[in-house]
Amino acid sequence: MADSSAPTRVMMAVNESSLKGYPHPSISCRTAFDWTLSKLVRSNPGGFHFLFIHVQVPDEDGFDDMDSIYASPEDFHQMKRRDKIRGLHLLEYFVNQCHQLGIKCEAWIRHGDPKEVICSEVKRVQPDLLVVGSRGLGPFQRVFVGTVSEFCVKHAECPVITIKRNATEAPQDPVDD
Amino acid sequence: MADSSAPTRVMMAVNESSLKGYPHPSISCRTAFDWTLSKLVRSNPGGFHFLFIHVQVPDEDGFDDMDSIYASPEDFHQMKRRDKIRGLHLLEYFVNQCHQLGIKCEAWIRHGDPKEVICSEVKRVQPDLLVVGSRGLGPFQRVFVGTVSEFCVKHAECPVITIKRNATEAPQDPVDD
Repeated sequence: MADSSAPTRVMMAVNESSLKGYPHPSISCRTAFDWTLSKLVRSNPGGFHFLFIHVQVPDEDGFDDMDSIYASPEDFHQMKRRDKIRGLHLLEYFVNQCHQLGIKCEAWIRHGDPKEVICSEVKRVQPDLLVVGSRGLGPFQRVFVGTVSEFCVKHAECPVITIKRNATEAPQDPVDD
Repeated sequence: MADSSAPTRVMMAVNESSLKGYPHPSISCRTAFDWTLSKLVRSNPGGFHFLFIHVQVPDEDGFDDMDSIYASPEDFHQMKRRDKIRGLHLLEYFVNQCHQLGIKCEAWIRHGDPKEVICSEVKRVQPDLLVVGSRGLGPFQRVFVGTVSEFCVKHAECPVITIKRNATEAPQDPVDD
């Protein structure tokens, strides 16, 4: 079997850790990435092309910035610049790893509701596979938190693989990641 | 990256076609198998080990055998033997393909409710990945038909990939496969 065909395009949705803060990737997306490398890519880095998407959620209630004072358009501009830098640092982690392993990749940032944006990016980019990490929340937690992975499995227009966080890595509050 | 690590153990649930009949595999499980070969295994057959499971559903209302007459224990024995032969022929299709490609594999038959049996086999065998085909039914059809893939994504204790049947391959009645 010669591997002359186009590489398998793997889209991965990545996000920041809610525990370790900037610029650490979340436990579940790091788990999903490591799993994909060791179990699917294996010794064939040339056969895969990674597409990292990071969706930033607009801070609707301004909670994270409650200590900030917005006195001018420049303040908002700075906030947006700060968000962009955070996103870029997150993506840098994944792009660096791919670079070291000789896996081609692209990475970009979008804004909006992660589950909606991921599915619309799948439609636009048409990857072969979408990989999403999952916190493995129980049914009770899911009602309140909602899960991106569940939505993507149903709605994304490509095969989807969900990879649950290891139970041993789950933080005290399972909603954290 | 040397590929000296143990091969990735991929469990695949396979079933018969409801349209083309014995011994053809269903459209969705054939789609899932072909996709896995071309998009994940690629040029690295030694890196993967396939585990095929075929779950036979006990024919509770005897509908399929309504023309048969059961007059002795031997009649039941023959029915079971016939079911077994059908299952073996189905598995033969997949094992042959793996053999031609140089992919190690194992295949076996179980009886019961497919979604329950698949998840309990995942627990027992602990594969790295479970691949399930999906008919891609809409929400209305799902209520009445139930989908194995949806159940497995939620309950199987390993990463799960669901691969939807191509829209172009969907039969007139989407419940058929």
